Amino acid sequence: MISGQSFIGNSASAQGPITFHTFNPKTNTENPWLFHEANDEEIEKAVQLAREAFQVFQNIPGKKKALFLRTIADEMEGLGDDLIQVYMTESGLPEGRAKGERGRTMGQLRMFADLVEQGDWVEASIDTAIPDRSPIPKVDIRKMLHPLGPIVVFGSSNFPFAYSTAGGDTASALAAGCPVIVKSHPMHAGTGELVATAILKAAKDTGMPNGVFSNLNSNSYHVGKALVQHPGVKGVGFTGSIAGGTALFKMAAEREEPIPVFAEMGSVNPVVALPSALEKNGDHWAEQLANSITLGVGQFCTCPGLILGLKSPSLEAFAQALGKLLGEKEPGVMLHPNIYQNFKKGKEKLSAQTGTSVVADITEDVPPNVAQQRLLMVDGDTFLANPTLHQEVFGPFSIIVQADDAAELETIVHELEGQLTGTILGEEKELKDYSGVVESLKDRVGRLIFNGVPTGVEVCPSMVHGGPFPASTDSRFTAVGIHAIKRWVRPVAYQSWPDTELPDALKNGNPLGISRLLNGDSSDKSI
Amino acid sequence: MISGQSFIGNSASAQGPITFHTFNPKTNTENPWLFHEANDEEIEKAVQLAREAFQVFQNIPGKKKALFLRTIADEMEGLGDDLIQVYMTESGLPEGRAKGERGRTMGQLRMFADLVEQGDWVEASIDTAIPDRSPIPKVDIRKMLHPLGPIVVFGSSNFPFAYSTAGGDTASALAAGCPVIVKSHPMHAGTGELVATAILKAAKDTGMPNGVFSNLNSNSYHVGKALVQHPGVKGVGFTGSIAGGTALFKMAAEREEPIPVFAEMGSVNPVVALPSALEKNGDHWAEQLANSITLGVGQFCTCPGLILGLKSPSLEAFAQALGKLLGEKEPGVMLHPNIYQNFKKGKEKLSAQTGTSVVADITEDVPPNVAQQRLLMVDGDTFLANPTLHQEVFGPFSIIVQADDAAELETIVHELEGQLTGTILGEEKELKDYSGVVESLKDRVGRLIFNGVPTGVEVCPSMVHGGPFPASTDSRFTAVGIHAIKRWVRPVAYQSWPDTELPDALKNGNPLGISRLLNGDSSDKSI
Repeated sequence: MISGQSFIGNSASAQGPITFHTFNPKTNTENPWLFHEANDEEIEKAVQLAREAFQVFQNIPGKKKALFLRTIADEMEGLGDDLIQVYMTESGLPEGRAKGERGRTMGQLRMFADLVEQGDWVEASIDTAIPDRSPIPKVDIRKMLHPLGPIVVFGSSNFPFAYSTAGGDTASALAAGCPVIVKSHPMHAGTGELVATAILKAAKDTGMPNGVFSNLNSNSYHVGKALVQHPGVKGVGFTGSIAGGTALFKMAAEREEPIPVFAEMGSVNPVVALPSALEKNGDHWAEQLANSITLGVGQFCTCPGLILGLKSPSLEAFAQALGKLLGEKEPGVMLHPNIYQNFKKGKEKLSAQTGTSVVADITEDVPPNVAQQRLLMVDGDTFLANPTLHQEVFGPFSIIVQADDAAELETIVHELEGQLTGTILGEEKELKDYSGVVESLKDRVGRLIFNGVPTGVEVCPSMVHGGPFPASTDSRFTAVGIHAIKRWVRPVAYQSWPDTELPDALKNGNPLGISRLLNGDSSDKSI
Repeated sequence: MISGQSFIGNSASAQGPITFHTFNPKTNTENPWLFHEANDEEIEKAVQLAREAFQVFQNIPGKKKALFLRTIADEMEGLGDDLIQVYMTESGLPEGRAKGERGRTMGQLRMFADLVEQGDWVEASIDTAIPDRSPIPKVDIRKMLHPLGPIVVFGSSNFPFAYSTAGGDTASALAAGCPVIVKSHPMHAGTGELVATAILKAAKDTGMPNGVFSNLNSNSYHVGKALVQHPGVKGVGFTGSIAGGTALFKMAAEREEPIPVFAEMGSVNPVVALPSALEKNGDHWAEQLANSITLGVGQFCTCPGLILGLKSPSLEAFAQALGKLLGEKEPGVMLHPNIYQNFKKGKEKLSAQTGTSVVADITEDVPPNVAQQRLLMVDGDTFLANPTLHQEVFGPFSIIVQADDAAELETIVHELEGQLTGTILGEEKELKDYSGVVESLKDRVGRLIFNGVPTGVEVCPSMVHGGPFPASTDSRFTAVGIHAIKRWVRPVAYQSWPDTELPDALKNGNPLGISRLLNGDSSDKSI
């Protein structure tokens, strides 16, 4: 059922000579399917089709785009257990996770369907003419958001559904009216192919133009590079490593016509445990954090990889409790041998730094690709002096930093790189007592959490998944939630444009019944 | 009254050894004031002060920021005729323009004051908790826009008030809660110094922190480069040349922490004259365009430098009429000898291209720095084959392109670089007849105009001043209108944060009375 071919619009294609397999990390064996890496001709054709499709797709009404997105969700569900099995085979993730993530992915598609069907999201704004204004007449100007053009989406390793082929980047770009070319993730190319068939079937069934979606297989840098540098591509969505995202970002900035790249990259997600949390609820937070660190074998962007506290007996007791719980957790299999090797290397590199001590470790033998979680501890001074200790280790790994006092704690937070999340554990009054720490943390993150854990990214309008570099390449946008659509649009103004020729969102009669800014005030009235 | 010093926060400073004068293009002589270029120590101090000021300024309530912005406008007006005289001396622009532009600048400051006083602009969004949701509880998440940090603003040559020291970039960044460091434009450093005193007096009188504003003199690339590369700077606003803006954009992308650069750069602002416009209203449009091309001696970003039509007797007649009117216009003095020299070089370069013919020219002698307007004509084929002809010549210059047919017209529009504006002259039904041309134009511009001229940028919520590269470096934002504030902010989410510690915009009681997204729906209610 898996062909190993790319989809150039509606056509399956496998012209290139380079081939690869995906891998089952659980059985430590290659999967049977042979994938063909897209060649230059296929890349070119996918972009040309996307360009042509854009001419039609950008003008398709919200209701029809909504039907397309909902049909993708339905078709994805229609792939049933076959899809779930391939997902598990290519990721080592359990069935519950596969089904949960499929549900989330379908939920995202339907959320964007609701958004574009309702229509307010285009931020329509109308300033009517004042012909007799002195000294010069005021002209009629109206604006709304328009799609940028073809978008390239790089699937992520850790979300084969929710941030890959039909994931949040694809759903938001299609919702905006942008054709999407997916650079399929080589670790789950089979899952990607199946999801791509669902998208293409939905596109055909709902009358979308050929080229609105393509799925290119690739196990090298070449395909991604060629896509990001192609003049026909107008934006990029990426979820992955700091090195990968930064390289694409710089490549896009060096183009003759630079284009926006939204890369959601690394984060250690600092958790600041204030004294009361450790003194009164140390065991509770140890349990919560042990679960959060090992959730999905630590393979979440929001895994808490850094815990900051004040040097004290209660911090020591908390560390021991957290270590004990981590040691008791069943080690899990990682997504891929490469990810497992990187985890092992990163863990050992940080453990080898002077001044670190191991609080908890798994030393017994484990099957191949199974991650042995580890917890380190280090003094604040040592941490501050050694940037290597600030690096993310992707997997079930965390460091506890013992700061000497509140001033050092604030300095540590201040010195951190940009993060997706920052968490404070404590009592309400401590937010005031440690306001310097809290303010510094706010400056470094996209999402602040009080008395919770950073894993578990709620998909809702108020979510921010992004943050100061290197958490993401543009902190002004989020990758999760309805506002993720804003990455793929630009405002276009129409001056003195005839009513009949305006897009529906800007017509006098307000045929879409949307909320608009009318001479500066919100209104859903016609003019 | 002009000291030639920079302002590092509230302190005047002139430590650097490099000095320069501004120039009066009308009298063709140097102005008397001696300006000191800021040195590295002064740059460092300005950024450090801005960083410190940000800690306070970002939390100052909207009402207080509004008072600050309005007081800047008042103080600027309070500088009275002295300011107008210095503006005229440094730009060669007439008194009416000086006063009009001052009024626009004050209007912009007050517009942003109204915006932040009202408060809706922070896009507050609240998703309340559902503790008993299955399978996992929903947490309380709220988000709003927060300022990025210190912003560097590069003053423009052609708007000494409206897009310089206290111009749109500065006003929008201060409104957002970002301290501003202005790299003063060397052509009008005296005007800049006076306006800076108005900003600093307003800052002191309204209790803003020292460092919320600095004004650095500079006549070289060094100061701008040092500012854009400084880790304490979090964003850049620029109005000027494609070469300058692109260089800053790439410099910012190469930083260890890349930062956003919004550069509003070049544009030839194509005007498509459809047959009926030429046949029925040729003389009217010739007059309108002659005025638009020479307005402000052609020194507007939106000057129509390219007119496209179908080869026909009516296009020929229109060209002759426009040429005649341009020839009768009194040539005007340009902003600076350098700008005049660039105009002359650009005009001659394009005129020397094979296949161009001169329709109108001023050949009689003119005083120094006075621009002799010129109109060229060229065939569509020649234009398509020669990218040099697509370049902007900053000043009173335009080219008429005669396309063979509608298909060639569409190809020409399709091949254009990104533009601030695109204009269609014609009848309503022609928008349908030439829908390919119109769609191609929409794809290339930030603002579409029907039966008007591109000059005259209305400052209102629906304005888009920006466009696909190289019109600007990020087409997703506008430099004019209230939404210009969005360039300097990022969303921050608060998860399970105690109500008392939330920013006012997100508190249950909605103490600011603003409109918020409450569980997905607009509401100004408390919770």
